[in-house]
Amino acid sequence: MIKVVKIGGNVVDNPELLKEFVKDFAAMPGKKILVHGGGVMASQMQKAMGMTPVMVEGRRVTDEQTLKVVTMVYAGWCNKHITALLQAEGCNAIGLTGADGNAIVAQKRPPVHVESLGKEVDYGFVGDVDAGSVNASFIYSLLERGIVPVFNAINHDGEGNLLNTNADTIASSVAVAMANYRDRSPREVCCRCEECTLIYCFEKDGVLYDKDDESSVIPEITREEFAKLKADGIVADGMIPKLSNSFKAIDNGVEKVVIKHARNLLKDIGTVLTTGIVR
Amino acid sequence: MIKVVKIGGNVVDNPELLKEFVKDFAAMPGKKILVHGGGVMASQMQKAMGMTPVMVEGRRVTDEQTLKVVTMVYAGWCNKHITALLQAEGCNAIGLTGADGNAIVAQKRPPVHVESLGKEVDYGFVGDVDAGSVNASFIYSLLERGIVPVFNAINHDGEGNLLNTNADTIASSVAVAMANYRDRSPREVCCRCEECTLIYCFEKDGVLYDKDDESSVIPEITREEFAKLKADGIVADGMIPKLSNSFKAIDNGVEKVVIKHARNLLKDIGTVLTTGIVR
Repeated sequence: MIKVVKIGGNVVDNPELLKEFVKDFAAMPGKKILVHGGGVMASQMQKAMGMTPVMVEGRRVTDEQTLKVVTMVYAGWCNKHITALLQAEGCNAIGLTGADGNAIVAQKRPPVHVESLGKEVDYGFVGDVDAGSVNASFIYSLLERGIVPVFNAINHDGEGNLLNTNADTIASSVAVAMANYRDRSPREVCCRCEECTLIYCFEKDGVLYDKDDESSVIPEITREEFAKLKADGIVADGMIPKLSNSFKAIDNGVEKVVIKHARNLLKDIGTVLTTGIVR
Repeated sequence: MIKVVKIGGNVVDNPELLKEFVKDFAAMPGKKILVHGGGVMASQMQKAMGMTPVMVEGRRVTDEQTLKVVTMVYAGWCNKHITALLQAEGCNAIGLTGADGNAIVAQKRPPVHVESLGKEVDYGFVGDVDAGSVNASFIYSLLERGIVPVFNAINHDGEGNLLNTNADTIASSVAVAMANYRDRSPREVCCRCEECTLIYCFEKDGVLYDKDDESSVIPEITREEFAKLKADGIVADGMIPKLSNSFKAIDNGVEKVVIKHARNLLKDIGTVLTTGIVR
């Protein structure tokens, strides 16, 4: 069993919550991988340096100077700070971008037409990843040695350029790749896949029936129920792509996806997404 | 044979020289490790953010804000940029701080009396390393798989803190640790050390007889000759600690130390330091 855990910027930005999360993550048994977002520090740094952050549909337009800043913040401070905290808790973490060990090779996004602006937008040094981008063999070789990979949003294109990518997509791509990775013994006699769970930690206890009632967590959502929740308007806005992507990961081999609060990593509170098919 | 190569900030700051160096380093056969310094970007960043860099005897006083900046610059931009460039040249590099894989555990430097100032200085989040700080087993496991570690000046104390350390000392400590690491086969039947060479790349062709004549490179210096060159004032200033530390590395198991220009990595131009004892 491999667990891929994603934490967002709201955890990275909150020293107390991060400290608690790091303790829980370090205590979680078995093979595990952490993926973290960036938080507000990149925009703060840009402003401190006289730059104006440009976001289009929630994604940062990343020119050369912005790439330097996000690489410094995500792959530098955030990634190494989290890695050092995990080491202090006895978790042998290794902070990685996609360039390190050629772990993830992203595709530079070509200019795209953005409906809401009615024009073409060049996001610059922004990359897209899928399960085929992930070097599962390298990642598995670390897991086998008890080393815990900690990914941030920076990847490379294999041609010398770093690219800013979406951490949610990195998490689901890594989970799908690991779920489908066949562990071959040196003599290639045995050949098996490991089960893989994807856990998205965010600032709510799970998917809520009533967005204003924190206690109204939906414990389990099957694909059929998701369709109904969407039709009824209970799952709306940003939760729709999150859940759609989660079911896509399940379609591609991930055992289950859990959506929960970062403080509940080791607790049985959250929303479990499953196919609804008893295996 | 393991080669540990150190490049200074003057290489990191010079895009053309860095590109050439990266090509040469990627083409260098055998097991290899890169250690890089930081360059002027950290001070530029500090100034851009309204901070005043404080240096005492060439070392940066590193308070909490400064630690964030140097971690962002050295472990973030510089380290990942170099790693991505190496990957593009077919060299499977992995950028590391000491926190990653618990590779190097530094000791936080206590406040020290600085003669030139006549007072005690607290360098803050500054660390010191020696060969005992280095996790040679982890580094060797990467080398064996054809992965090339790329270290920067950031290490950790094992208690959750990152520390700013001296890249020259990281290079010599890693070289000594690898020279003394015994590679054990899984059954611990075979047990041997690898020879290790330490190569310092800087902005001159080697140690010069006449500091104003670039062509006056001293091809080889034994310990005896070093004493004479010091006494005659030919080796002076910053070259004295560099050479003293190099001979210390040789005393502790490193086969030889080479001091050369970064553009000459693959060329036979430079100064070789040896014991003078034919082995």
